Amino acid sequence: MNTNLTVAIVGVGLIGGSLALEFKHRLGIKKVYGIDKDPQNLRKALELGLVDEAVSLDRGVRDSDLIVLSVPVDALPQLALEVLDMVDNQVVIDVGSTKVTLIKAIKNHPRRKRFVATHPMAGTEYSGPKAAMIGLFTGKKVLVVDAQDTDRDALSFVKEIYRAIGMNISYIDSDSHDLHAAYVSHISHISSFVLALTVLDKEQDENNILDMAGGGFRSTVRLANSAASMWTPIFLQNRDNMLDVLDAYIDNMLAFRQAIASGNKKDLNILIHRANMIYEILNITQPNILTTKTLSHEWKE
Amino acid sequence: MNTNLTVAIVGVGLIGGSLALEFKHRLGIKKVYGIDKDPQNLRKALELGLVDEAVSLDRGVRDSDLIVLSVPVDALPQLALEVLDMVDNQVVIDVGSTKVTLIKAIKNHPRRKRFVATHPMAGTEYSGPKAAMIGLFTGKKVLVVDAQDTDRDALSFVKEIYRAIGMNISYIDSDSHDLHAAYVSHISHISSFVLALTVLDKEQDENNILDMAGGGFRSTVRLANSAASMWTPIFLQNRDNMLDVLDAYIDNMLAFRQAIASGNKKDLNILIHRANMIYEILNITQPNILTTKTLSHEWKE
Repeated sequence: MNTNLTVAIVGVGLIGGSLALEFKHRLGIKKVYGIDKDPQNLRKALELGLVDEAVSLDRGVRDSDLIVLSVPVDALPQLALEVLDMVDNQVVIDVGSTKVTLIKAIKNHPRRKRFVATHPMAGTEYSGPKAAMIGLFTGKKVLVVDAQDTDRDALSFVKEIYRAIGMNISYIDSDSHDLHAAYVSHISHISSFVLALTVLDKEQDENNILDMAGGGFRSTVRLANSAASMWTPIFLQNRDNMLDVLDAYIDNMLAFRQAIASGNKKDLNILIHRANMIYEILNITQPNILTTKTLSHEWKE
Repeated sequence: MNTNLTVAIVGVGLIGGSLALEFKHRLGIKKVYGIDKDPQNLRKALELGLVDEAVSLDRGVRDSDLIVLSVPVDALPQLALEVLDMVDNQVVIDVGSTKVTLIKAIKNHPRRKRFVATHPMAGTEYSGPKAAMIGLFTGKKVLVVDAQDTDRDALSFVKEIYRAIGMNISYIDSDSHDLHAAYVSHISHISSFVLALTVLDKEQDENNILDMAGGGFRSTVRLANSAASMWTPIFLQNRDNMLDVLDAYIDNMLAFRQAIASGNKKDLNILIHRANMIYEILNITQPNILTTKTLSHEWKE
């Protein structure tokens, strides 16, 4: 691809910063501007070498071929409108976790078709420029939302960029996106937050947590470090879908509670066997276990 | 340590099989017997080289220095009594996830002091002999429960074995063990099972799950593959503690639901910030991020 490009990243946190790294170091894109309303974030992004230069929003939009909006979803609609107001033929993308509110906001903008709504399904439980990392997107899925509402050249360009950083593209409409994001991704975060809160409520002595915290607990509670500044706006913007999936979650939790309270072994087995089926769908297969043949070598060394 | 020993593993699944691997291949223990009421499991364990020989329970107990009981917790009390009946000066340990019922069952046995109740805080979401792996216990915690009720030589021997396979030992009484196991480990499993059930309920089309299932979902739902044969007995044996922690979990989930339903940004932020505190306790620090200095080299190659 043509790498003689300038890209502006608005919001140099985990996702914006990681994209900047990919653009500069994997794709060799000529110039990556950083824009952030938090001067500390911006300074850190420069210091870490995530971006080449800190610029104003005006200059970033005017001088770039691609503008990436990677800010919390409550700030996105207003920012998207502001950026589209300044856009001529550039391409603008967002990387937010909810789409309905954003797309409704820009619906009637004369430059709507320069905007491509995208959701890279990649992240970690850390946030800010320090959390940026290369390779975050490799082999992951990116959802392109309401693709029919964008100019063909803009769409092609964005697809080329995402493919170049190793992502697989799927297409979805904004209503379905927000629904399924709630049902799979957003509820996982709530489940992890609630686990953390519960353990913190019940355990006054940290040592008891440390004694009992095996790999299973750590894995399940991993997302509980996720940032409120990112997730509170997601939950609120996706309110109706969240309530829907929360009620289903609570019903299933009550089914477990009821089976345990009544000592119903059969019901518990059924619930667990049904839960096990998620592994078939995710196509997770048991990792190859080292056999003693390979082991004897290893341990003899 | 003296490796001229014979060990019998009763139940050659994930934990029993992994201990067998450590004993044979890391510690160089002379002979490891496998015992399992499921002939398929036993055949598999032999085939994988987890154990040297399949024997009857009688012979295993009679001819071994150490007998490891690694069976589901509902089978443990009866098995422990049966084994203690045959024991002379051997040492018997269990590796179960609940202790109160077991320890109550063997309390008045004349050979009680040859029994050391232990709980290695290690496992994976897989089960059976195929899931056995070396290194499972390295650097992990093992809890020794009601240590005061065992003979000193038996305790020393068991501590030596666990240290030799790289585990760190903590001590706890059986009531506290079951309470804190429920509060941290067992609730994590329920939380993961319920997440899986909820996603399966809401998503009829697997593709929607696959599109939205990022690393976060996979991590949170990981334990949902855990085996009903192991976990149903744990939940039922630890019933009162489970109900206690389940109610706390449901209360916290309802707090999230209420904050989202009423659009209460402040409450949501408070809940998430409180949940974030689990990371300080677990002392999880952000991994070192590759900076562009190291990256430029990497990507130039």
